[in-house]
Amino acid sequence: MYLTKKSRLLKDPHDIRMCDNSASSSVVFVGIPWDGAVAGRPGARLGPAKIRTAFCNLPKRVDVEDLGDVDVVIGDPAETWQRVEKTFRSLKDRQQILVAGGDHSVTPYVYRGLSEGRKISYVVLDAHFDLRTVSEGLTSGMATRLVKESGGDIPITVIGIREWSNPSYMFSLADKMGIEYYTIEQVHKLGLEEVADRVYQQHKNYKAYLSIDIDVVDPAFAPGVNAPSPGGLTSREVLILVSHLSKALRPIAVDTVEVSPPYDVGDITSNLAAVLLYTSIWSR
Amino acid sequence: MYLTKKSRLLKDPHDIRMCDNSASSSVVFVGIPWDGAVAGRPGARLGPAKIRTAFCNLPKRVDVEDLGDVDVVIGDPAETWQRVEKTFRSLKDRQQILVAGGDHSVTPYVYRGLSEGRKISYVVLDAHFDLRTVSEGLTSGMATRLVKESGGDIPITVIGIREWSNPSYMFSLADKMGIEYYTIEQVHKLGLEEVADRVYQQHKNYKAYLSIDIDVVDPAFAPGVNAPSPGGLTSREVLILVSHLSKALRPIAVDTVEVSPPYDVGDITSNLAAVLLYTSIWSR
Amino acid sequence: MYLTKKSRLLKDPHDIRMCDNSASSSVVFVGIPWDGAVAGRPGARLGPAKIRTAFCNLPKRVDVEDLGDVDVVIGDPAETWQRVEKTFRSLKDRQQILVAGGDHSVTPYVYRGLSEGRKISYVVLDAHFDLRTVSEGLTSGMATRLVKESGGDIPITVIGIREWSNPSYMFSLADKMGIEYYTIEQVHKLGLEEVADRVYQQHKNYKAYLSIDIDVVDPAFAPGVNAPSPGGLTSREVLILVSHLSKALRPIAVDTVEVSPPYDVGDITSNLAAVLLYTSIWSR
Amino acid sequence: MYLTKKSRLLKDPHDIRMCDNSASSSVVFVGIPWDGAVAGRPGARLGPAKIRTAFCNLPKRVDVEDLGDVDVVIGDPAETWQRVEKTFRSLKDRQQILVAGGDHSVTPYVYRGLSEGRKISYVVLDAHFDLRTVSEGLTSGMATRLVKESGGDIPITVIGIREWSNPSYMFSLADKMGIEYYTIEQVHKLGLEEVADRVYQQHKNYKAYLSIDIDVVDPAFAPGVNAPSPGGLTSREVLILVSHLSKALRPIAVDTVEVSPPYDVGDITSNLAAVLLYTSIWSR
Amino acid sequence: MYLTKKSRLLKDPHDIRMCDNSASSSVVFVGIPWDGAVAGRPGARLGPAKIRTAFCNLPKRVDVEDLGDVDVVIGDPAETWQRVEKTFRSLKDRQQILVAGGDHSVTPYVYRGLSEGRKISYVVLDAHFDLRTVSEGLTSGMATRLVKESGGDIPITVIGIREWSNPSYMFSLADKMGIEYYTIEQVHKLGLEEVADRVYQQHKNYKAYLSIDIDVVDPAFAPGVNAPSPGGLTSREVLILVSHLSKALRPIAVDTVEVSPPYDVGDITSNLAAVLLYTSIWSR
Amino acid sequence: MYLTKKSRLLKDPHDIRMCDNSASSSVVFVGIPWDGAVAGRPGARLGPAKIRTAFCNLPKRVDVEDLGDVDVVIGDPAETWQRVEKTFRSLKDRQQILVAGGDHSVTPYVYRGLSEGRKISYVVLDAHFDLRTVSEGLTSGMATRLVKESGGDIPITVIGIREWSNPSYMFSLADKMGIEYYTIEQVHKLGLEEVADRVYQQHKNYKAYLSIDIDVVDPAFAPGVNAPSPGGLTSREVLILVSHLSKALRPIAVDTVEVSPPYDVGDITSNLAAVLLYTSIWSR
Ligand SMILES: [Mn+2]
Ligand SMILES: [Mn+2]
Ligand SMILES: [Mn+2]
Ligand SMILES: [Mn+2]
Ligand SMILES: [Mn+2]
Ligand SMILES: [Mn+2]
Ligand SMILES: [Mn+2]
Ligand SMILES: [Mn+2]
Ligand SMILES: [Mn+2]
Ligand SMILES: [Mn+2]
Ligand SMILES: [Mn+2]
Ligand SMILES: [Mn+2]
Repeated sequence: MYLTKKSRLLKDPHDIRMCDNSASSSVVFVGIPWDGAVAGRPGARLGPAKIRTAFCNLPKRVDVEDLGDVDVVIGDPAETWQRVEKTFRSLKDRQQILVAGGDHSVTPYVYRGLSEGRKISYVVLDAHFDLRTVSEGLTSGMATRLVKESGGDIPITVIGIREWSNPSYMFSLADKMGIEYYTIEQVHKLGLEEVADRVYQQHKNYKAYLSIDIDVVDPAFAPGVNAPSPGGLTSREVLILVSHLSKALRPIAVDTVEVSPPYDVGDITSNLAAVLLYTSIWSR
Repeated sequence: MYLTKKSRLLKDPHDIRMCDNSASSSVVFVGIPWDGAVAGRPGARLGPAKIRTAFCNLPKRVDVEDLGDVDVVIGDPAETWQRVEKTFRSLKDRQQILVAGGDHSVTPYVYRGLSEGRKISYVVLDAHFDLRTVSEGLTSGMATRLVKESGGDIPITVIGIREWSNPSYMFSLADKMGIEYYTIEQVHKLGLEEVADRVYQQHKNYKAYLSIDIDVVDPAFAPGVNAPSPGGLTSREVLILVSHLSKALRPIAVDTVEVSPPYDVGDITSNLAAVLLYTSIWSR
Repeated sequence: MYLTKKSRLLKDPHDIRMCDNSASSSVVFVGIPWDGAVAGRPGARLGPAKIRTAFCNLPKRVDVEDLGDVDVVIGDPAETWQRVEKTFRSLKDRQQILVAGGDHSVTPYVYRGLSEGRKISYVVLDAHFDLRTVSEGLTSGMATRLVKESGGDIPITVIGIREWSNPSYMFSLADKMGIEYYTIEQVHKLGLEEVADRVYQQHKNYKAYLSIDIDVVDPAFAPGVNAPSPGGLTSREVLILVSHLSKALRPIAVDTVEVSPPYDVGDITSNLAAVLLYTSIWSR
Repeated sequence: MYLTKKSRLLKDPHDIRMCDNSASSSVVFVGIPWDGAVAGRPGARLGPAKIRTAFCNLPKRVDVEDLGDVDVVIGDPAETWQRVEKTFRSLKDRQQILVAGGDHSVTPYVYRGLSEGRKISYVVLDAHFDLRTVSEGLTSGMATRLVKESGGDIPITVIGIREWSNPSYMFSLADKMGIEYYTIEQVHKLGLEEVADRVYQQHKNYKAYLSIDIDVVDPAFAPGVNAPSPGGLTSREVLILVSHLSKALRPIAVDTVEVSPPYDVGDITSNLAAVLLYTSIWSR
Repeated sequence: MYLTKKSRLLKDPHDIRMCDNSASSSVVFVGIPWDGAVAGRPGARLGPAKIRTAFCNLPKRVDVEDLGDVDVVIGDPAETWQRVEKTFRSLKDRQQILVAGGDHSVTPYVYRGLSEGRKISYVVLDAHFDLRTVSEGLTSGMATRLVKESGGDIPITVIGIREWSNPSYMFSLADKMGIEYYTIEQVHKLGLEEVADRVYQQHKNYKAYLSIDIDVVDPAFAPGVNAPSPGGLTSREVLILVSHLSKALRPIAVDTVEVSPPYDVGDITSNLAAVLLYTSIWSR
Repeated sequence: MYLTKKSRLLKDPHDIRMCDNSASSSVVFVGIPWDGAVAGRPGARLGPAKIRTAFCNLPKRVDVEDLGDVDVVIGDPAETWQRVEKTFRSLKDRQQILVAGGDHSVTPYVYRGLSEGRKISYVVLDAHFDLRTVSEGLTSGMATRLVKESGGDIPITVIGIREWSNPSYMFSLADKMGIEYYTIEQVHKLGLEEVADRVYQQHKNYKAYLSIDIDVVDPAFAPGVNAPSPGGLTSREVLILVSHLSKALRPIAVDTVEVSPPYDVGDITSNLAAVLLYTSIWSR
């Protein structure tokens, strides 16, 4: 019989993929299949499955332990977020945690779990400030606000803000809240390395959390998102930026959020998220 | 100046569309942009907008009053369902109510609102029984169960069941619960008119509620759904069936649910839902 | 060298395709790349190229002469229609003419060209009556009216009318104009053969023109159209109907119109149009 | 921690899926990720993965053992087919074998493996005769010819032939080779049960192999194929036909071939193939 | 009752969108749903509806008055263009006019309407020169020529020319006609600011009209166009360029043309056009 | 009659397209419709047809002779590659050969045919090293290795390598084999002109072969490939790079390979390949 449970058509014996070795590791991969806070286009619950497939298919021998997905509860955000927080509290001794979201509302709870008993600074790549307050209901556009509320006087930096995709009041609000930000024009003018260096200077005395809202990338490179905004980073720019930031900051956790497969084209958004997670592994 | 706020390119003065007359009417149209109970592929929250556009674009002069959408609360199913129930309680004197969902979880609350103080029987077109009980979380696959629990000893009939898309225990459960059903093979064998006639006999002494889970239709005709199942009704069959049932039963309300635009192709699913709602207006 | 201008990957020497023999024939194929009268979704100008490719790729040895396309003038409907009329006037001695539209506005001019000096009856498969009068501008929804105006007291039959896609006044107008029609429900009830037979009885004393507005087919089978309407014929039904009508009526011309490639999915609409044209060749 | 390797969002404890029990069974599932003989649109190599996912996701408790995929060799058809043949020779004592192709060229080798030392009759659902002889190279359009050459004087029946998609010489060739066939028009006229019954009469004294070339289905229901042909079976018709044939013939093996995911829309073709394989299990 | 005609799922009371305030303003928005001059892929008639939706959904409080669409006449370019011209003649006292096309053939008539009695210079972003002369029929590739013929000895600058998408004679013709141009390579070498500055120097003594043929953008960022050409501007580059030009030149009108929704992917082209129009408002 | 076999809707008499003059030329165009070595996503066999259509539609008057396609043999790589080699051996006196693949496995055989009796250096744009050795079967990921084995001690340069898409052992293997490479980060840092100049210095004493694996381009610009990798060149960068390299090296042959139309979006990948081939013609 010529039967195989792992039908790889390419027969290169040296071609070891990311998840071929499933041993325990100090670097872990966790999915959070949750999009219950999205007020616009849902679908990010399907992100972890796609990102994991792409991640595991990368032809690299790096030890990463796939812990599976957080067991979310459809329709119950409070319970789900509590599970997220508890889960990551139990993981806080791992060297680096890779998180595949899920909408951006999960980030503050990952952050809370990991920051129990310690100060963690927050760097986020996002087209949006995520500083909203809603009169009722939920939105994933509150992530930065909630991190701020949990983290206290930690440094927070948002990179990739699009002027045309944020209400005007957000800019002054960010200033008032002490949140540093770089608009996409500033990134364009300063250059990726200068931005990365400034962020490093700001955060170097902290353990850092790096959150990547994939809508920081232009919709040409990342069509599969809840809230696309033109003028974003190219795929190469975001890869270089994440590489610089990861090497410099050695973040204890990195997430990619807001990947919405129903709106993706040829899986390019989830593939990019997977490569970003790989790129962020500073210990490799 | 040659400016128009209503840029219709076809200049046929006799071409009056469904919503050109926005006057008060005994027939009303309500949307429910909610998909918070879907455990699989979300997107039905975007159904009402698409169905309304297609409905309003039908070249028919029928008086229908568009009441807008129920003001749902993202992330709060209990509050949302209560709003749905209260809204329809206030509408129960209208002759016929057309509802554009939304996932199937809204149907029991529309039903509750309308059935306050009276017995209403329930006819549902669906590939699935929707009799699930979940250990935690939500699913739109509980709709029939919840209607049954609200309605008491009313007749309930499910039409279009696919054997391959329902757990085996559901068939005996339906029997135990006194729920009549027609599998797609039975519909095929009996013919649409015979099925419609049998359903009429079963329900003729009741005011009826007609719920159309668009997944009763084959995915070739209705790709934009949460839980597609092959072997379904053709678009013509579902139109004929709804026409027969509506003329016979004169339902007080008709809904089309589970239309998920992110998974649709060329809007054919939402267009079909719109034509089904039009077809169901027995007073036209 | 192993170079070939006709790179057919299938190497079956018996596999002769429709257009492998380009000789003169009494059956001709003509395209009309024109969509200048469409008031809704344009694109039918691209129909002839797609239909021709599919037609020529059919694995059948039937003599058909491809005459190319009518040389239309973008932005000048009057000139274009005159060219259409003159072109087909010069072709009227051919035994059977296959026309790949183009929007439905070309049909009256093909008809005029061919009916010079003789009475030709008109059978049209369409979801719509095409009896509109516009206050200004153009629409392809006038085709039947214009044929009627040209043809005089010839029999005209429309098959496949959808009640929900035609203004109500059209039904009485059709009666007033002496136009026979079969709604899709009537086709469903009577059966294809009965309809074909009745049409034959009506038209048997005339040379007939058969026009196929591809929107008579359900959008599941023919998504690439200007004005999709659910509840239509299946592909098999339309093939059987065209086969019956062609064998019975031996039409002097058959057109497929309103195929709009930008809205097609996997070319299934243009492929169906090509097979319909092939099926209509009563001399094969 | 709330981590799960099997993140099922629906929390119905009674919802057991096809592959939740992975125990040994007399019914087996085998994939063949091979499309090396396709002369047109490749992609069927990706069929098994998609069909398996859909099959395993069916909410049914039937014991089926997933044996994985045949270990094919890209670029080496002879070796691959030999592996297919050997693999199925070793499986021939299983009660029923479900095969997910792959292009139709694998069928003759599955057949050879299973028919070692016994006569097996052949029933195939296909738009095409698959009786081609090529002057060089390969085609999946030779499957029926190769089965005939292996099987000898067994009964062979092809159901679903489209006149417009087969060279004319094939019809007389089929007659000459003693191959029974039903065109799609004959299926339409006779009805599914009559066809199934006639096939049963023809094959009842044999163990039967049932091959389902998914292109027997209309492209509206099965767009993801190598060689689409309009006028085909609907999804419901093919399900009813396969159900009848399987119950009557109790085939020792059933395959679904020519499913080409790159050309699919919303996975409806692979989902249909999965339901067909499920439906064919006569022992359930 | 909890009914709303404006079902916004995000409940942020500070989230005011562009068109929430519909008051009179010195900045106006006008659509021109016309693609009657396109010789290739039509569809731009559907541009205004999509661009308006995206524009109105921007989370910015800027006073813009939406005047609706020019009432075009399908099939009658002369009448339509006259209406365009008359409409904009009546609008010429507005501070800034935002135009959502439509194909590029409307630009010369907007220009004529606005330039009555005054000299207006012309800056156009385009992959093409649009200097064609046709022997018959229409093309949207004549826009620059027609502006030149209307405007006389005004400065005209074309930015973004692709060498591979223009006939060679066009380059010398542009020189002969005194039309300044920047190829995409020149833009690449000089940089956006240098180009913007040079254009400013050339036009600073004039009131300027800024026309944005969206095909100046690369098809990765703007797939929904009539005539895509690779190597174009990125979305960020075009946003920066339009920002610079608008701030410097304070144009009296800005149009985005050639957006063809049937060819778009996820509405990214119409979204980009909307953000470009927003970005061009120099008075904000 | 107004019939035309070449229905060009644009009536600009000066608009001469690439293939309007089909005369003999020192520059030739050859397609190779072959994807038999792809281990992943097939479809490149359909590349030549799409690339040719786009190439011939370019509005440029350059003499190029279209020789058609190599007559490949489905399922027989050895025979096909031999035909490729023999074909190009017979073409080696042409000044410049443009090749439209096909998967990358054809390049070594084009190279062999052309390098008979002379040393030809090899420059390849690729996301991948293509230095694989497989234990059985084929892959198009061996192209560079096979060229190296044929070419001997010629200079070989790979441009565009993505770290995340190549096994780690490949980097040291490339060094060991004396293969020069530029990762995408190096290209980013050095700039296109510096890279082109370094490559020129390395190859200037050789006749050069330039191979363009279209996956060197980012999937946003080139989604239609077998093995997409994010972070790639933009369309403009690859055009500039190919322009520099072609002008400097005056390559005797240029190929574009791995264009897979089934995975393309709006034909942007094949259009880009066509413009690249045009751009590479250094004699124009
Ligand atoms: Mn964001
Ligand atoms: Mn965010
Ligand atoms: Mn259902
Ligand atoms: Mn349901
Ligand atoms: Mn019609
Ligand atoms: Mn019509
Ligand atoms: Mn077949
Ligand atoms: Mn077959
Ligand atoms: Mn242009
Ligand atoms: Mn232009
Ligand atoms: Mn590559
Ligand atoms: Mn390669």
